[in-house]
Amino acid sequence: MTRRTAPRRVVVLGSTGSVGVQALEVLAQGAEDGSLELVGLAAGTSWKVALEQAAAFGVTAVHLADLEAAARARDAIRRDTNARAAQHASIAELLDRTEPDLVLNAVVGFAGLDATLAALERGIDVALANKESLVAAGALCMGVAARTGARIIPVDSEHSALQQCLAGARAGEVESLVLTASGGPFRGRTRAQLANVTVEEALAHPTWSMGGKISIDSATLMNKGLELIEAMVLFELGEGAVETVVQPDSIVHALVRHRDGSLLAHLGWPDMRVPIAWALHHPVRPAVADVRRLDLTQMPSLAFEAVDLDTFRCLALARAAARTGRGSTCILNAANEVAVAAFLAGHIGFLDIADVVDGALEALDPPGEPDSLDAARELDARARIAAVDCLAARSR
Amino acid sequence: MTRRTAPRRVVVLGSTGSVGVQALEVLAQGAEDGSLELVGLAAGTSWKVALEQAAAFGVTAVHLADLEAAARARDAIRRDTNARAAQHASIAELLDRTEPDLVLNAVVGFAGLDATLAALERGIDVALANKESLVAAGALCMGVAARTGARIIPVDSEHSALQQCLAGARAGEVESLVLTASGGPFRGRTRAQLANVTVEEALAHPTWSMGGKISIDSATLMNKGLELIEAMVLFELGEGAVETVVQPDSIVHALVRHRDGSLLAHLGWPDMRVPIAWALHHPVRPAVADVRRLDLTQMPSLAFEAVDLDTFRCLALARAAARTGRGSTCILNAANEVAVAAFLAGHIGFLDIADVVDGALEALDPPGEPDSLDAARELDARARIAAVDCLAARSR
Repeated sequence: MTRRTAPRRVVVLGSTGSVGVQALEVLAQGAEDGSLELVGLAAGTSWKVALEQAAAFGVTAVHLADLEAAARARDAIRRDTNARAAQHASIAELLDRTEPDLVLNAVVGFAGLDATLAALERGIDVALANKESLVAAGALCMGVAARTGARIIPVDSEHSALQQCLAGARAGEVESLVLTASGGPFRGRTRAQLANVTVEEALAHPTWSMGGKISIDSATLMNKGLELIEAMVLFELGEGAVETVVQPDSIVHALVRHRDGSLLAHLGWPDMRVPIAWALHHPVRPAVADVRRLDLTQMPSLAFEAVDLDTFRCLALARAAARTGRGSTCILNAANEVAVAAFLAGHIGFLDIADVVDGALEALDPPGEPDSLDAARELDARARIAAVDCLAARSR
Repeated sequence: MTRRTAPRRVVVLGSTGSVGVQALEVLAQGAEDGSLELVGLAAGTSWKVALEQAAAFGVTAVHLADLEAAARARDAIRRDTNARAAQHASIAELLDRTEPDLVLNAVVGFAGLDATLAALERGIDVALANKESLVAAGALCMGVAARTGARIIPVDSEHSALQQCLAGARAGEVESLVLTASGGPFRGRTRAQLANVTVEEALAHPTWSMGGKISIDSATLMNKGLELIEAMVLFELGEGAVETVVQPDSIVHALVRHRDGSLLAHLGWPDMRVPIAWALHHPVRPAVADVRRLDLTQMPSLAFEAVDLDTFRCLALARAAARTGRGSTCILNAANEVAVAAFLAGHIGFLDIADVVDGALEALDPPGEPDSLDAARELDARARIAAVDCLAARSR
C-alpha cells in the first residue's frame, strides 16, 4: 500500500448498522497500517454499541440521532469515569469538530440526505452507502459536490464495480452500464406465489447479508431500481443507458458495455468490505484482510437471466420514475420507505409494497427536481402522506 | 469518435494474413471517418492480394518479403499502366519512405522480430500481433521501446483485454493476470486420443478463425504459452503472476485479479476486429461496425476449467521456459516453429510437437536473454538446428 504521510481521517455515519460495522473492520486494518483513522461516528438508537465502538477506536466524537438514545448515552458517559466520548448535537457539529477528510454515510433511507449534503457543503468527500441521497435529490447532491470540489465515491457494490470498470473510459466510449441483481429470495416465483410470503422469508437474502430495509428492497427488486437511479446520477447517463440483469450468484457485480462491443465486468465473492475498503482508500486499491479469493474453476458457472418485471413491479416503477424525473424518484423513495416499514410491521402484504409506491406516484404531480434540502424534505413529506393514504386502503 | 486533426498514418505488415485482412477492414472504416490512413503494406508470398489491397486503398508503398513474389509483383506493376505501387526492398525502407505513426505487425513467427525492432528503433508505435517478437526477445524489444519512447500496443485479444482491465491500476494493486484459453479443438481429449489426430482436425478451431500456425499453436495450447510469456514481458510480471484457465466459449478474454479480491474481466463475442481496432485507435476506444453485441441473457453460461497440463504439455514447457529465462523462451519459440511446420507438412504427429520443443530445450544451454537482433537470430538458428535434430528421430 502507498503510505500517505498522514492517515486519512474518517467519520462513519451509521456505524452500528451492517455497512457501518464492516467499515469499522476496514478502519481497524487501516489504523494498523497507518492509512486510515476513525475520528468520529454516528448512530441512531444503538447507543451502547456506538459507545463501545468509540472506546475501541479511541474516538471521542459521537452523535446519536435518536433523542432517547442520546440521553441514555449521556448518562452512561457521566457515570463512567474512564469515558472520554463527547456527544455532538448534530452531524454538522460532528463534522465541524472532527474535520474529517472523508465521511462514510451508511445512514439508512432519506434521513441520510441531510448528512450527505452537510459533508459535501463542507467540501468533504463522501463514501456513499446511502443511495437514497441520490435517489431523492441527485441533482442537488451532484451540484453541491461540483461547487465545493468534494467527491462522491459509491460504496454500493454495484456502483463501486461500475466505477472500477469505467476507469480510463472516455466520454462517448460507453454504450451502457449493466447492473446485476441476485434476484433476491423470490427469484423465479410468480406474483401469485408472492401474495402471502412472510417478513422472515423476505429478509432471507440468498447472497448478501444486509440490514432489514435493504433486504426487503432486494426482495422486491426496488433496491435495483434505486441503484438504477443512483447510477444515472453518479455516471450522468440516461435511464435507457442503464441495463438490469439477474446474476443469481452475485459474483458478477456489474458490467460496462462499450461501443466496440467489449464489456468490462467486475467479479468477486460478495463481501461488502471490498467496496467499503475501495471507497475509504480511493483512489488507491487496498489489500483486504482475509478476503475470499475467487477460484474460477471451482465457482458456479456464471449465468444471467432477464428480470421478471411483471412480478417485480418495483423495478419497473423505479425505471418509470427515472424516466419521468422532476422529483418522481424522490416520491418513489419516500413511498417505498413507508411501504417497507408497513410490510416489516406486518400491516401490508409483500405485493402491496409496489401498489403503495404506485399509488403515491399516481397521487402526486412531480413538481421538479428538489433544489434544496428543504425542497427535498417537503416533497418527501408529501409523498409519505400520499403513501400512508394508500396504506390505509390496504392495511390488514 | 474524437476527431484528430490528421488521420493516424498506419503501415500494415502481414496484410494478406488473417489479422492483416481484418485490420484492413478496420482501416477502411477509419478512412471513412478520417481517423486512420493506410500508407504502406507488406506481405510474404501473396503478391496478387497485396497489390489488390494497395490499389483498393490507394497505397503506393509495398514490400514483399518473398523474393519470387517480389519479382512477379514487379512484372505485374510494369505491365499495368495504371499501377502506382512502388516496391521497397525491406521493411526498414518501407518505414523510412512512409514515416507512419503506427505499424501493425501481423507477421507470423520469429520473422516478425526484425520488423518490430525496425519500427521501435524509429520511435514508431507498434500494434503487435506478432507475439513471437516478445517471446524471442522480449527484454530487447521493451528496452528499445523505452529508449525511443515508442509504445507497444498488444493486438492479441487476450492482451488487449488485459490492457483494458488494467486501466487505472497502480503498481502493487494487481495480484495476477488470468489468460483464458478456449481449450482448442482437442479440449477434453486424453494424450492417447491425440496420438493420431490429423492436420485438418488440428486446424479446426472452435471459436476463433485464424491462420495455420496459430491454429496449431491453439490446438497444442502452445499459443497460450506464448501469450503467457508475452504477458509477462508486456506487463512486467513474473511467471507466477500469470494464470491460465480454460473458458470454452472464448467470451471472457482475460481477467485481472486485484489484491482486494476483485477481478476485472473483459467479455465479448470473439471478433479480432475489436482488439485490432482498439490497438489502431489507442488510446481512443472506437466504434466497430457491425460488431455482434453480447446479449447476457441469451449467451451460454460462463464456465471455467483448469488446463490439462499433462495432455497439453506445450503450455507446461512454455511456463518452464518462462521461469528459466536466459533465452529459453527464444529456444522454445524456434523449436515450436520447426515442429509446427513439420506437423503441418505431415512429417510428425501431433504429440511430437511438444517432444521436439522439449528436446531442443534439453539440448541447448540457454545463453542469456538476446540483447541484439543478431544475438536473437543466432539463438533462434541454433534452436532450429536442435529442433531439426529432434525431428529426424521422429519423422515418419
